[in-house]
Amino acid sequence: MTSRTESQSQAAVFHGPETPLELRTFALPVLQAGEVLVKIRCATICGSDRHTLQGHRPVSGPTVLGHEIIGTIAELASAGPAVCDLLGSPLKIGDRVTWSVAAACGRCFFCAHDLPQKCESLFKYGHETIERSPLSGGLAEFCHLRRGTAIVQVPNSLTDHVACPANCATATVVAAMQTTGGCAGKSILIHGAGMLGLTATAMAAMQSARCIVVTDVSSERLARAKAFGATHTALAAENVEVLKPLVQEITANRGIDLALELSGATTAVEQSVELLRTGGRLVLVGAVFPTRAAQLFPEQIVRKLLTINGIHNYRPHDLANAITFLHKAAAMYPFASLVDDEISLKEIAILHGKGTTNRAIRTAIRPQ
Amino acid sequence: MTSRTESQSQAAVFHGPETPLELRTFALPVLQAGEVLVKIRCATICGSDRHTLQGHRPVSGPTVLGHEIIGTIAELASAGPAVCDLLGSPLKIGDRVTWSVAAACGRCFFCAHDLPQKCESLFKYGHETIERSPLSGGLAEFCHLRRGTAIVQVPNSLTDHVACPANCATATVVAAMQTTGGCAGKSILIHGAGMLGLTATAMAAMQSARCIVVTDVSSERLARAKAFGATHTALAAENVEVLKPLVQEITANRGIDLALELSGATTAVEQSVELLRTGGRLVLVGAVFPTRAAQLFPEQIVRKLLTINGIHNYRPHDLANAITFLHKAAAMYPFASLVDDEISLKEIAILHGKGTTNRAIRTAIRPQ
Repeated sequence: MTSRTESQSQAAVFHGPETPLELRTFALPVLQAGEVLVKIRCATICGSDRHTLQGHRPVSGPTVLGHEIIGTIAELASAGPAVCDLLGSPLKIGDRVTWSVAAACGRCFFCAHDLPQKCESLFKYGHETIERSPLSGGLAEFCHLRRGTAIVQVPNSLTDHVACPANCATATVVAAMQTTGGCAGKSILIHGAGMLGLTATAMAAMQSARCIVVTDVSSERLARAKAFGATHTALAAENVEVLKPLVQEITANRGIDLALELSGATTAVEQSVELLRTGGRLVLVGAVFPTRAAQLFPEQIVRKLLTINGIHNYRPHDLANAITFLHKAAAMYPFASLVDDEISLKEIAILHGKGTTNRAIRTAIRPQ
Repeated sequence: MTSRTESQSQAAVFHGPETPLELRTFALPVLQAGEVLVKIRCATICGSDRHTLQGHRPVSGPTVLGHEIIGTIAELASAGPAVCDLLGSPLKIGDRVTWSVAAACGRCFFCAHDLPQKCESLFKYGHETIERSPLSGGLAEFCHLRRGTAIVQVPNSLTDHVACPANCATATVVAAMQTTGGCAGKSILIHGAGMLGLTATAMAAMQSARCIVVTDVSSERLARAKAFGATHTALAAENVEVLKPLVQEITANRGIDLALELSGATTAVEQSVELLRTGGRLVLVGAVFPTRAAQLFPEQIVRKLLTINGIHNYRPHDLANAITFLHKAAAMYPFASLVDDEISLKEIAILHGKGTTNRAIRTAIRPQ
């Protein structure tokens, strides 16, 4: 089954933080059973990509970056059984879809232990070398989906801009929230008001959190957090004593029920342990790059019966839940304002993936 | 209801690490509704008590130490409804019982959040000042049980020596294990081969752990760990590289499924994070005294999707499960060998609570 008219695809290849992105042309693949070819509508550059482009996060290159992607199905493998979406419905040419950042084998040790994102033969969109797979990143015209990729249909109500971060930021926040037992009635501390933090703020608000304190180094970002449901905001400070009076006031001196570390700052990890109440929980998500070690006192973790969870990526059902969440949340919170600056592949190559302004949280790339 | 013939009780009062225990006599209390008077058969000195006696753990004194206690019911409150054990059976004079280290109100914030051990009006046996309650520690002839204390009957098959640590070490290990989702098929790393570590080793073995690695600073203790089900033992080392080859060999290079920190050593916390597999869990129990901060890398916790749980004390049902566990385990593992050196209250006062030898894990005090 095919509707493609092209035989090749442009892609912006990353060779390293010191080298400009290279615009190259690759032949479209011959699909194997279970595979799908997607024509990319839109991709966004997430925080991890930005860290890679800036040289703070080592990756094996050359590679095509970008893993927050929305596209339409251009071709489905003719061999093998019909390719279905995550809910079991057969996919067809022209369906507007997003897909899990990682494709898993479903048979290895980690797949068997419910960690498909750590599959021993993991294939990760926006992370593979062009030798392994040239068309697997978002900064290209086409993306070649491997067998084992969870594909989710995107409802018409969701614009490309709102849906694009679903398969990275939104699904990761869904995964983080799933460890918490829900936010209803809780006091929540969210470190970081980027895409992860704003998504978490809206999700906590929709789950009826009692109060939501958001911290960030930028007062502009904190103002935005208010629009996403934050009840209190505070500039991130080196000294935990700055935040303590507010936390004590809103928690009757008991401390925070749930802290989400979405900024990557080690100070935020240390302050969370200090500010949590006895029986509280800290979920770590932001630190996906090397930092200094956090200084944590074991006695404090023991006596306060704290739980600390590390979350990296997500499971396929988290992506389905991310789309469901955005479908509701986009009507309530200004998600549409977080992505702007539509630019072409050629422009992103010239700009070395940096986007054009710093106003929005994400820059959208329209390859065609 | 009473069978008591005495009107007063001796007790060994702790004034501070520099002062000898003082043998004093207190009047027996008049019981209020829901209260029980127990004649103490036997008490054991746990690691926390030893830390207190050595001045490593600040407590408010003067106090009667000892919270691992077995006794027989000498009197039940005549006012109010019948006092029942944790399973709802009415208690009677002469019943051989143990009880939760903490009595909770059942109505406060922490009780409502399933943390009765952190009750806002907590009463803790072996920890109260003699002004608040003179007869609430194990180093005495009688113990006065408050309303809100979970009382559990001790089956005849369990000797005093085996049952005595149930309401501290055993119940705490039950609480720690309850967070883990069970040990079946797992590789387990246990730091510390004291009462907590040996209990955890036997519990992991009875839950069909695939392999159990125990570390300790003492080779004598490690030899004992083998008798409690350890499949591998290793002397605790400063450098994680010493333990790594063994862990890699037994886990196909993936790392440990579950680590239990029962020694209180900060190095053990750091090494556990290093040695856990992706998706692994670390339960912290041992650090109930001030130590240096652990240096933990947030990126490692995130990328490995680790879970870290702090456990302090336990909930009433953990004590019931501890007695059930010991009932089975005492026939399989040499728990009876862990307590020896029966000494009197007078002797323990002279010895300043230190016990007589270092051969056994616990010293038993027989007040009468």
